[in-house]
Amino acid sequence: MATLVTQILPGLPTIDEHHVDRRRYPDGVAFMDGQYVHMSEAKISVLDWGFLHSDATYDTVHVWNGRFFRLDLHLDRFFEGIKRLRMKQPYDRNKITLILNNCVALSGHRSAYVEMICTRGSSPMFSRDPRQAENRFIAFAVPFGSVANKDQLERGLHVAISDTVRIPPKSIDPTIKNYHWLDLVKGLFDAYDAGAETALIVNANGHIAEGPGFNVFVVKDGSLRTPAFGVLPGITRRTVFDLCAEIGLLATAADVSGAEIKAADEVFITSTAGGIMPVTRIDDTVIANGLVGPVSRRLMDLYWQKHDDPAWSTAVMYP
Amino acid sequence: MATLVTQILPGLPTIDEHHVDRRRYPDGVAFMDGQYVHMSEAKISVLDWGFLHSDATYDTVHVWNGRFFRLDLHLDRFFEGIKRLRMKQPYDRNKITLILNNCVALSGHRSAYVEMICTRGSSPMFSRDPRQAENRFIAFAVPFGSVANKDQLERGLHVAISDTVRIPPKSIDPTIKNYHWLDLVKGLFDAYDAGAETALIVNANGHIAEGPGFNVFVVKDGSLRTPAFGVLPGITRRTVFDLCAEIGLLATAADVSGAEIKAADEVFITSTAGGIMPVTRIDDTVIANGLVGPVSRRLMDLYWQKHDDPAWSTAVMYP
Repeated sequence: MATLVTQILPGLPTIDEHHVDRRRYPDGVAFMDGQYVHMSEAKISVLDWGFLHSDATYDTVHVWNGRFFRLDLHLDRFFEGIKRLRMKQPYDRNKITLILNNCVALSGHRSAYVEMICTRGSSPMFSRDPRQAENRFIAFAVPFGSVANKDQLERGLHVAISDTVRIPPKSIDPTIKNYHWLDLVKGLFDAYDAGAETALIVNANGHIAEGPGFNVFVVKDGSLRTPAFGVLPGITRRTVFDLCAEIGLLATAADVSGAEIKAADEVFITSTAGGIMPVTRIDDTVIANGLVGPVSRRLMDLYWQKHDDPAWSTAVMYP
Repeated sequence: MATLVTQILPGLPTIDEHHVDRRRYPDGVAFMDGQYVHMSEAKISVLDWGFLHSDATYDTVHVWNGRFFRLDLHLDRFFEGIKRLRMKQPYDRNKITLILNNCVALSGHRSAYVEMICTRGSSPMFSRDPRQAENRFIAFAVPFGSVANKDQLERGLHVAISDTVRIPPKSIDPTIKNYHWLDLVKGLFDAYDAGAETALIVNANGHIAEGPGFNVFVVKDGSLRTPAFGVLPGITRRTVFDLCAEIGLLATAADVSGAEIKAADEVFITSTAGGIMPVTRIDDTVIANGLVGPVSRRLMDLYWQKHDDPAWSTAVMYP
């Protein structure tokens, strides 16, 4: 801060020059306003409309064994989201690639969860007109995280279906990756109440939509299906389609009912945070024989193999 | 920060000890973690789920001529929202009242926009489980702002109806005041494109819902109506019901169609940010004779009179 501004008013507490935050944050590096800082310093104003109106878009790419996975697809979606929200940020694709690389390299992480964000920002007069806000770009790299832990990846997740309805596309365009998650958080608490580990929520027609940060697939009679309507077009979801094409499995996007998902041969979820993760129980129903199935295993193996393939991944330039 | 952590890696930029934010923020005072700080210091981590998942609730009360208006009702709604989101914050009602008072008094503002916020917060390991997050309470006071400026209050606002659908209650409970605003922001840009000053968006049945930060009322043949379904139960909306009861006007909550609002005798919007604000044009339709109507004027006058009434307002304790 430029100047020390501490006031002492009679009968009132004093105004401190700086906010002191004693919370601990994960080990990582962020980029803001041309600077690289540790995660404990990566903060936005409480007046940023990205917070006060969730007026923001973002994307998350992961680094595995020192390589970005499908970075181009994440950048495509991020730039498209910014355009649709009519925001501007100062960096081109190459510069953002460099910034993401630097966040990872400076963090030292070989496996990382890397997020790029554009918020509406704020204006000095706290104008309510979004056209008057100065948009803000942020990026950060923290340790890789997964929806499913090691144990859950081996035995399969226990998922509960919540009757919470995913925010419909007529309200929020799901192709703009966004932070509107209170429906997913509600689903998650419903799932915890039911003794499950994570949740699926439904779309306006009562069909399965998605879960907190993931898409879902069912395998039945050797072919795959994933909900088509009102869901985020996930990059890992798309990767499953690409892998299926490569090995000759049929995958389609179409409605999936609660009854259908419980009658599936196999079920898995997909997310940048964990990749392809098996589900072996939904509500009180054990899926098939309750073990992780062969199609899931084959796709999981192939998914992780692709992380070393230069056609699917890009090396981080560490010092 | 406790220690200086600056790394220099070959070929990479350095990590700065502190983020330097050159943006200007409005004059005001915030409360965070037991401290009072200027707005330029009031920041939350980019890892706070209140930002990354819009997992937060809030309320906004205003101060006019040195008095809080209907603070009790705002506190009731805030505490109810925190409970429904299963969050915890350490302060009771009296302490929050004191904190809000101190933010206003330290800011010196006689008229202020005062916000209290509870976010999901974060956990040191960046856990995806909301039960593991340490929730965060924030409050701040900035200069009073209004949806309508002086000119617009005199001549009436020009509003456009957007076909964007307000996030339905089956997705997000609207009684929990929340920051899920991308639908409202979309409506606002639609309105700007149409040459209007602000927007109304619709509910899932195509009826009028609400606008960015406000409810709406129509006056027809001497009685009032405001949308019932899928809208925030605004405190200013409730105040209109209370004022109508006092002066013997009939007010009901029921569906309002686009055709009905354009055929109204008078239209006004209600918000803590500006109170009761007249609308004289909707899309290309001039409402009645295009002037602010007598019922709107009477309610506006009464609304501001109540700001001095100890039954409706509480004095800020300035030093």
